[in-house]
Amino acid sequence: MNIVFIGSGNVATHLAIAFKAMGADIIQVWSKDSRNAEILAALTKAEPINKWEALDQTADCYVISVKDDAIADVVGHLQDVRGIVVHTSGATSIDVLKGAGTGYGVLYPLQTFSKTKAVDLKNVPFCIEADRTETLEKISAVAHLLSAAVAEVSSDQRKVLHLAAVFACNFTNHLYHLSSKLLAEHNLKFDLLKPLIEETAQKIRYAAPIEVQTGPAIRDDRETMKKHVNLLADSPQLQEIYVMLSNSIKNTEL
Amino acid sequence: MNIVFIGSGNVATHLAIAFKAMGADIIQVWSKDSRNAEILAALTKAEPINKWEALDQTADCYVISVKDDAIADVVGHLQDVRGIVVHTSGATSIDVLKGAGTGYGVLYPLQTFSKTKAVDLKNVPFCIEADRTETLEKISAVAHLLSAAVAEVSSDQRKVLHLAAVFACNFTNHLYHLSSKLLAEHNLKFDLLKPLIEETAQKIRYAAPIEVQTGPAIRDDRETMKKHVNLLADSPQLQEIYVMLSNSIKNTEL
Repeated sequence: MNIVFIGSGNVATHLAIAFKAMGADIIQVWSKDSRNAEILAALTKAEPINKWEALDQTADCYVISVKDDAIADVVGHLQDVRGIVVHTSGATSIDVLKGAGTGYGVLYPLQTFSKTKAVDLKNVPFCIEADRTETLEKISAVAHLLSAAVAEVSSDQRKVLHLAAVFACNFTNHLYHLSSKLLAEHNLKFDLLKPLIEETAQKIRYAAPIEVQTGPAIRDDRETMKKHVNLLADSPQLQEIYVMLSNSIKNTEL
Repeated sequence: MNIVFIGSGNVATHLAIAFKAMGADIIQVWSKDSRNAEILAALTKAEPINKWEALDQTADCYVISVKDDAIADVVGHLQDVRGIVVHTSGATSIDVLKGAGTGYGVLYPLQTFSKTKAVDLKNVPFCIEADRTETLEKISAVAHLLSAAVAEVSSDQRKVLHLAAVFACNFTNHLYHLSSKLLAEHNLKFDLLKPLIEETAQKIRYAAPIEVQTGPAIRDDRETMKKHVNLLADSPQLQEIYVMLSNSIKNTEL
């Protein structure tokens, strides 16, 4: 399996390294920034390129991992390649790929990637979609190189998944940040909260989140909520977030 | 070590069972609801009571795990006991205990407890506070029966910790719920998000949350955020939460 990566960001880096580890050949890494292309190319023994004229047209698979609004432009350069073309975006429809390669589709890993931390992809859900059955089988084979959790998901469903992931991952991480800031302002270590954060995340393995909701809002403990709002008197934005999320919890239908 | 538990909710249940497992004797469980007292008493081979006249005055330690606004009333019945008296509340000052027992203080486990899931307490931070050094040593010994992570924390600091825990745990769990609801509305399984949720929580072992923030808000990807807000057209409350948390991420000072 010969793969060309278009892009060299977090997703491209994690996927390219994982493909390489599974025995695939990464033959080229394209990036508009030649230094980024060189770094990822060096990690995967690929050829770094930053001009479209240098693109190898004969790879089995072209993986587009660039910013969402740059995908359409990339696709323009992949009309005549001999392999299949996939993008890895959660929020972008399959339709942007129309006409690319000899078949096209989506390979969306539902995970958060930071360059500083390795991720075991084996259990990461890969959401795939294709222009036709033949391509779907090829993309499925590509996805199964990396993960056992491959699921066919339509563009409309993928948009919802991506949005749900913003709530469950991006917003959650931001709440971790807000709490760590609160602690730092009062000379308390964030370490104190880490077991609680891990336990909260692990609970959902066994129970629906709504069944294990705790805290003053679900108990409608107004005295405690009033104290908390007063404690946040110097942070109007935190106060607003506190009130809005507490109200949302109170309004939850069991 | 002889312990009397006042209360039979989630915290009382987890602590009483853990103390029992570490060799302490739970001699009585008081609850205003006699059936709840009986259940926890049966689990810990204690005597269930629901009248103050039946209280054994000779225990080494009285653990108050009742709703915050019921603590003061309980304390009125523990003025003359021969042991120390502690409460387990994050949001309640030590002062509510004034005069109780032969010494008083706080034993606050910084963790989320649901009756349906066992929790390993060994790494759970226990925040302790006492009326004087002698009592602090006793409470520290009691806490060390259960955990290696015992920290002295003042009432003012504990209030902040409790508030930070609401952000990091209660609100986070609610975001899990909101995302699971979104998925269910589009015939998608919450299982798809679980690896992402666990990875997000585990990242903070190695990096400050702010360093690993991902998603459209931190990239200021307005096109994607606009699409997300449109997708939430039928859920004004989710829209509001989306916009507020996205703005808070954008306003984060690195």
